[in-house]
Amino acid sequence: MSRVEFRTCPASYRHWNLAVDGPVATVTMDVDEQGGLVPGYELKLNSYDLGVDIELYDAVQRLRFEHPEVKAVVLTSGKDKIFCAGANIRMLAASSHPWKVNFCKFTNETRNGIEDATANSGQTWIAAVNGTASGGGYELALACEHIMLVDDRSSAVSLPELPLLGVLPGTGGLTRVVDKRHVRRDLADYFSTRPEGLSGKKAAAWRLVDEAVPRPKWDETVAERAREMAAASSRGQGQDGISLTPLEKDRSDDAIGYRYVQAKLDRARAAAEITIKGPAAAAPEDAAGLHEQGADFWTLAMTRELDDLILDLRTNEPELGTWVLRTTGAAQRVLAYDELLLKAKDDWLAKEITHYLKRTLKRLDVTSRSLIALIEPGSCFAGSLLELALAADRSYQLAGVFEDEDPDAEPAAVIVGPMNLGPLPMGNGLTRLQTRFLGDDDALAAAEKHANEPLQAEEAEQRGLITFAPDDIDWADEVRIAIEERASFSPDALTGLEANYRFAGPETLETKIFGRLTAWQNWIFNRPNASGPDGALRKFGTGQRADFDRRRV
Amino acid sequence: MSRVEFRTCPASYRHWNLAVDGPVATVTMDVDEQGGLVPGYELKLNSYDLGVDIELYDAVQRLRFEHPEVKAVVLTSGKDKIFCAGANIRMLAASSHPWKVNFCKFTNETRNGIEDATANSGQTWIAAVNGTASGGGYELALACEHIMLVDDRSSAVSLPELPLLGVLPGTGGLTRVVDKRHVRRDLADYFSTRPEGLSGKKAAAWRLVDEAVPRPKWDETVAERAREMAAASSRGQGQDGISLTPLEKDRSDDAIGYRYVQAKLDRARAAAEITIKGPAAAAPEDAAGLHEQGADFWTLAMTRELDDLILDLRTNEPELGTWVLRTTGAAQRVLAYDELLLKAKDDWLAKEITHYLKRTLKRLDVTSRSLIALIEPGSCFAGSLLELALAADRSYQLAGVFEDEDPDAEPAAVIVGPMNLGPLPMGNGLTRLQTRFLGDDDALAAAEKHANEPLQAEEAEQRGLITFAPDDIDWADEVRIAIEERASFSPDALTGLEANYRFAGPETLETKIFGRLTAWQNWIFNRPNASGPDGALRKFGTGQRADFDRRRV
Repeated sequence: MSRVEFRTCPASYRHWNLAVDGPVATVTMDVDEQGGLVPGYELKLNSYDLGVDIELYDAVQRLRFEHPEVKAVVLTSGKDKIFCAGANIRMLAASSHPWKVNFCKFTNETRNGIEDATANSGQTWIAAVNGTASGGGYELALACEHIMLVDDRSSAVSLPELPLLGVLPGTGGLTRVVDKRHVRRDLADYFSTRPEGLSGKKAAAWRLVDEAVPRPKWDETVAERAREMAAASSRGQGQDGISLTPLEKDRSDDAIGYRYVQAKLDRARAAAEITIKGPAAAAPEDAAGLHEQGADFWTLAMTRELDDLILDLRTNEPELGTWVLRTTGAAQRVLAYDELLLKAKDDWLAKEITHYLKRTLKRLDVTSRSLIALIEPGSCFAGSLLELALAADRSYQLAGVFEDEDPDAEPAAVIVGPMNLGPLPMGNGLTRLQTRFLGDDDALAAAEKHANEPLQAEEAEQRGLITFAPDDIDWADEVRIAIEERASFSPDALTGLEANYRFAGPETLETKIFGRLTAWQNWIFNRPNASGPDGALRKFGTGQRADFDRRRV
Repeated sequence: MSRVEFRTCPASYRHWNLAVDGPVATVTMDVDEQGGLVPGYELKLNSYDLGVDIELYDAVQRLRFEHPEVKAVVLTSGKDKIFCAGANIRMLAASSHPWKVNFCKFTNETRNGIEDATANSGQTWIAAVNGTASGGGYELALACEHIMLVDDRSSAVSLPELPLLGVLPGTGGLTRVVDKRHVRRDLADYFSTRPEGLSGKKAAAWRLVDEAVPRPKWDETVAERAREMAAASSRGQGQDGISLTPLEKDRSDDAIGYRYVQAKLDRARAAAEITIKGPAAAAPEDAAGLHEQGADFWTLAMTRELDDLILDLRTNEPELGTWVLRTTGAAQRVLAYDELLLKAKDDWLAKEITHYLKRTLKRLDVTSRSLIALIEPGSCFAGSLLELALAADRSYQLAGVFEDEDPDAEPAAVIVGPMNLGPLPMGNGLTRLQTRFLGDDDALAAAEKHANEPLQAEEAEQRGLITFAPDDIDWADEVRIAIEERASFSPDALTGLEANYRFAGPETLETKIFGRLTAWQNWIFNRPNASGPDGALRKFGTGQRADFDRRRV
């Protein structure tokens, strides 16, 4: 199969329509049945595959950057009587286990992004469910702040995965039903075993939707609700958006290159060596300069590149199990960009860039690859880029310099900056520093106190900011062994280990979705009862019943 | 294979020694290599199987009920140079997936029980790690409040599951390392990839243990620490324990019967029909009466029976996927027993019984069976027994009476009592009522306000305490369909659904262990990389390397 490409733009959409009318945008799902990403299935009934979701992700992003005037987003369907039938079943049945899991991860991230827009951008998403929303279709609605269901004696919301397919809803449905919408757990249980779901006033009474609206009043009520939500939005007034210009990218079999982000694909060691370059020029002086640079502003450009790289590697290079993270450039310049973003924090664009960086780092956190940060002379692990090292499973910082390479170099330093102290929380609601120093308030306070100080290896190790600080003599061996050893371990066990160690501390909707719900779903996906030749996923639509191993595990 | 029996007593232990010396008990692990529960493996190096853990569970229970004088428990090994090598690998490699998962669940519950003894009974467990503790051996130590490691240049603690077996530590290790002991996540990552683990002062510096003690000072320091912990204990003085007399049980292929608990095994419908009888006599008047009755006191006797039944059914009857829960007896009498326990809450035995009921109900919560409560005339779903209905995935309460059976019967009622309002929290730290009404404070307040009122079906339904309230005409069909339908669904998907819906709200060590860590471990156990013919579990000890599918999922 050819490589999947995540870059797109509204002019290229096959499945969605994005229309903006003043403060209200309407995102209409109208899936092209013949437009599947992979041959072998038709995307009937507004069902989706990865290709459909890639466009949705693009729309969510563009609304935030290109449409600061939009304060409410109506998500609806362009089909008659059907809102969305969820992920395409034939696609799921034909997909490999890694594909299914990666697909669910990306769709989950996009739904979390919809919630992030509502919570942090004053772009409130409204699900205008104008036909039946089943499975992933209802889960898409669940990501919205307000769910309206047309009350017409045929349209329903449902989670039919368990009774029909022998799997779980894969994009947060179970968690959002009880933890976000507070549907009572026994009602949720009944609902999730009922293939036809619930409709109308009963769906509203059970909190599955916020309101059931008779069809004659539908258009008017949706418009009214959108106006109300827009009026209640915290988003500022009358600003011009920036253009998310096409992302330039060189992609070959052994390298991926952008302006600030490079990756070498080392298949022999099953590793991707990723280098992120700091800013090429000094930061603009103020928000006006930031707006002028738009998509060229370093933080935004670098984040878009990193985002695309993560998605490309996750989807196209599942065998590269370790990502080695390096940075290169001037640390003070990185901090200056951070400072501008934080100083201009009432500026919508500065805010959007910071939230986007936050979301992209969260994507890294939930990536099922071992992350190893290498902190070498000439690097700039400071502030926003220090987050890469803090996101890593391990970090190595060179003590001293590479004597053979550049004996006069400045030894590598890490710098904690304001960006590390709040604006970029993980999915668990804590900063990466707070998670790192969970239960050790003294170490956290010391790290904060020494913010803005360049810390060379020995001090960084002592303060707990890095894992190991080998010197020139040990460096090559220690790093080589770490990478080679990682490639020798069970990839599954590594994924499980990392998923558990990366998220110490409190749990949130997000960590429950990625940590708990996803783990159960992965297990179920992998069991013969779902994916075996007689499993429910394979038997769906054949008229035959699945043949289950009845033992409860 | 023959049925597994969980009832035992110290005189029958093959693997443990329990010695009590005033306020300090010593629990010594000395596994009989030839004493495996199932043929086919030797329990070398103090490794354990389910049979070994059944005895440990018994010891933990007896210390709480039979030894109120014990305030510190030293857990140590009777072998030379080895503390415990964890779960037996050959046993794991030879076990079916359901067996492995059920085994891990039970061992997890026992380790949680050790923490519960420390937290709630003033019985502080100390791990005296007098030799190497690897894998499940170190996890056993992690359940203790204080970990002492002998510092002798050979003894270490380790979690070698990932590098050696391609699986995760299965009894809470990952969670306890970062969330309980606050080992830094990158150090935890390194530690968990190092088969030989860490020893001595480094293990202490990384917080993996609390202290490393040189061998010459070992005995003296362990004794000193035990004295200190006992002295600091909140447990009362000089009381007499009660005897946990042998539990009488009739077990056949189609029924399990105790004094207060009965189960009919309905293999045709893949269901166990469980009935719990209320007290046969009025509650004793005071704590003295409670002590006099000892193990015959209804709440304790019923809880021991329910506990044994849960363990029996989980282990021996994996195909009975639905448990139907009924009660029969006088509700006011149940409430009177509850009242006595709560009134006498400073009495150690009353406290122990309440905590034991709490732990047993938690066992029900994490049981991978669908739970359906049937509330019929003559039932006594009140207070402590109402928890069964609240633990269920669904409940049905008959509106009115069975006209053909007993037209003059009193209609079924449920009664919220003080036991439902705090003393019996779930693993998530909330009561079952709080979890049920998550995000709906009004409904919770109303349920509390109407405590002690018998609520018939219509009112109970309206107050959200039950799921459905069919009348005589609909009852038989609705209940039949619910049970039959459950048996038709994918057992795996049901397990995943229930694990997600039962634990809305906050997360704790316990919910992380059962919800997240367990789900990942189940997935990994089930993957060819671990359990396939070339998987790491099968290749362990053969000198051959596992052949991994390298794709990261």
